[in-house]
Amino acid sequence: MLIAIDAMGGDNAPECNVEGALSAAAEWSDTQIVLVGDEARLEPLLINKPANVTVRHAGDVIGSDEEPVNAVRRKKDSSMVVAGRMVREGEADAMISSGNTGALMTTGLLVVGRMQGIERPALAPMIPTLDEVGVLALDLGANMDAKPQHLVQYALMGSIYRSQVHGIAKPRVGLLNVGTEPGKGNELTKETYPLLEALQGIHFVGNVEARDVLTGGCDVLVCDGFAGNILLKTLEGTAGAMFSLLKEQFSKSLKTKLGAAILMPELRGLKGKMDYKEHGGAPLLGLSGLVVKGHGSSDGNAVKNAVRQARIALQADLVASISKEISGK
Amino acid sequence: MLIAIDAMGGDNAPECNVEGALSAAAEWSDTQIVLVGDEARLEPLLINKPANVTVRHAGDVIGSDEEPVNAVRRKKDSSMVVAGRMVREGEADAMISSGNTGALMTTGLLVVGRMQGIERPALAPMIPTLDEVGVLALDLGANMDAKPQHLVQYALMGSIYRSQVHGIAKPRVGLLNVGTEPGKGNELTKETYPLLEALQGIHFVGNVEARDVLTGGCDVLVCDGFAGNILLKTLEGTAGAMFSLLKEQFSKSLKTKLGAAILMPELRGLKGKMDYKEHGGAPLLGLSGLVVKGHGSSDGNAVKNAVRQARIALQADLVASISKEISGK
Repeated sequence: MLIAIDAMGGDNAPECNVEGALSAAAEWSDTQIVLVGDEARLEPLLINKPANVTVRHAGDVIGSDEEPVNAVRRKKDSSMVVAGRMVREGEADAMISSGNTGALMTTGLLVVGRMQGIERPALAPMIPTLDEVGVLALDLGANMDAKPQHLVQYALMGSIYRSQVHGIAKPRVGLLNVGTEPGKGNELTKETYPLLEALQGIHFVGNVEARDVLTGGCDVLVCDGFAGNILLKTLEGTAGAMFSLLKEQFSKSLKTKLGAAILMPELRGLKGKMDYKEHGGAPLLGLSGLVVKGHGSSDGNAVKNAVRQARIALQADLVASISKEISGK
Repeated sequence: MLIAIDAMGGDNAPECNVEGALSAAAEWSDTQIVLVGDEARLEPLLINKPANVTVRHAGDVIGSDEEPVNAVRRKKDSSMVVAGRMVREGEADAMISSGNTGALMTTGLLVVGRMQGIERPALAPMIPTLDEVGVLALDLGANMDAKPQHLVQYALMGSIYRSQVHGIAKPRVGLLNVGTEPGKGNELTKETYPLLEALQGIHFVGNVEARDVLTGGCDVLVCDGFAGNILLKTLEGTAGAMFSLLKEQFSKSLKTKLGAAILMPELRGLKGKMDYKEHGGAPLLGLSGLVVKGHGSSDGNAVKNAVRQARIALQADLVASISKEISGK
């Protein structure tokens, strides 16, 4: 299999992508990795490159602050768009990018292309849970004003992903809502609930309140992009605020500094657990090819993990499975 | 001034309400407190009651799990509805209840009555912030499918409340959104942004991302009830999950137990800071009388704090101020 990596995407690009590519190539000799980006910057980082790593030159880069649609339309020679074109033309089996999220969604839509029957593709990151299994949440940021039919497709796609890529036999699908009773919510969730209840092929466990997400009430959490963003950013903000407060309180006196020093390894472990960035790449589901989004702050290890995820999805023939399921509904 | 307390509302009722009433009555001799509820249960708790505490018998109670609209319509002799009627008829200047939130909203709408010109009243609790000032967020749970015009009214009402009850000269009003740029968001927030920008009489600071709420980017946070609920419950869930994780990690070994014991007072302080329940009662804004919601788990101190808030709002003539501002728009 051949995986294209947008070598110029991410806060630590291109180094993180080169490092991730080399380490993935060393672990999986059956996988061909193409680093897409500026040859002049990449080649010096690849003095002893193995046979299964190559470079595809792309002269342009989409910055993290650029307006997505304009950037993708104008920068046809950017590393992200070139990688997307490789997927569309069947030259690559998958692409990975840790660059501008909006631009990657747009590359997915305009370059790779939507899957037939899917109205709105979804970005599906993992949210950490206390049991460390995590929950796949979709959509998280792509589709702000979702309709019930979109949420139904998210439920199907998320369920297939969890079962095929994560090996969960019967993934529990929950609907993000303001209460657990069926009649709760806004117009969108009230209309979506009966559709999910009637949907064949998924294991719907009903409404899930935001406060119960972290305790692992479901494996797939369905929501519109706006509510999903509020959930994820609140989680991130609260965890960050609590660590700041802990730090502040623990440096109050010699006594508390001592206590904190004793607990430091545990505190670090806690930080890792609460950090959704550490929970791997997020697939863009509903495209006609496989696209995985790495977090902007990805390091080499995160990029390698994204390759791992892409490999599993390719081995499971994820895109074809979703397409079959969607066309059957 | 006369404040009616729904003595039967709350997880710790009626004790918490009696305790709060007695302590408020001792502190503010100019305030008459009427405990509304079952005389047979209240009188034994009030052996030495001061002159400014009385009991108004109400034979029925609305339970925390009851369907709000049915309960309010049917239970005309419940403590909550009787207190609401006292406000409507001018017998009481304000009411406080720590009972069923939905039923209290319904009591506000059907018994106390909406303010003229207000389409949707809002529930406005304080969310804790790192600087301990807190942010007033509205709406949090009453109005699930808000329209831009509702959010504009929330902005006005929240701003008046912060200035008159909390003494903030020029409250910063933020719109909860998925990004800080003006064009970001769903249809609701995209339509609301220019309206808030053009609104006279408030200090609009633009979009606020969920992760920045806790760092105190604004004094009033405007949102629809669905998004607000996701924000508040995620905050609650994340803080709770982190305390569970801390506890678990800290009891791993004798060494970590020792570290945790040293830090215990600081950890307790942190818990208080992150707990929005400790941040006082939430006003229901947009009614023709003053209604304050105490948290379900209120103790005597929380009830006393709700009385304090009600007193300040009454002294500032809050309801009339809001009415004047709304009718001028």
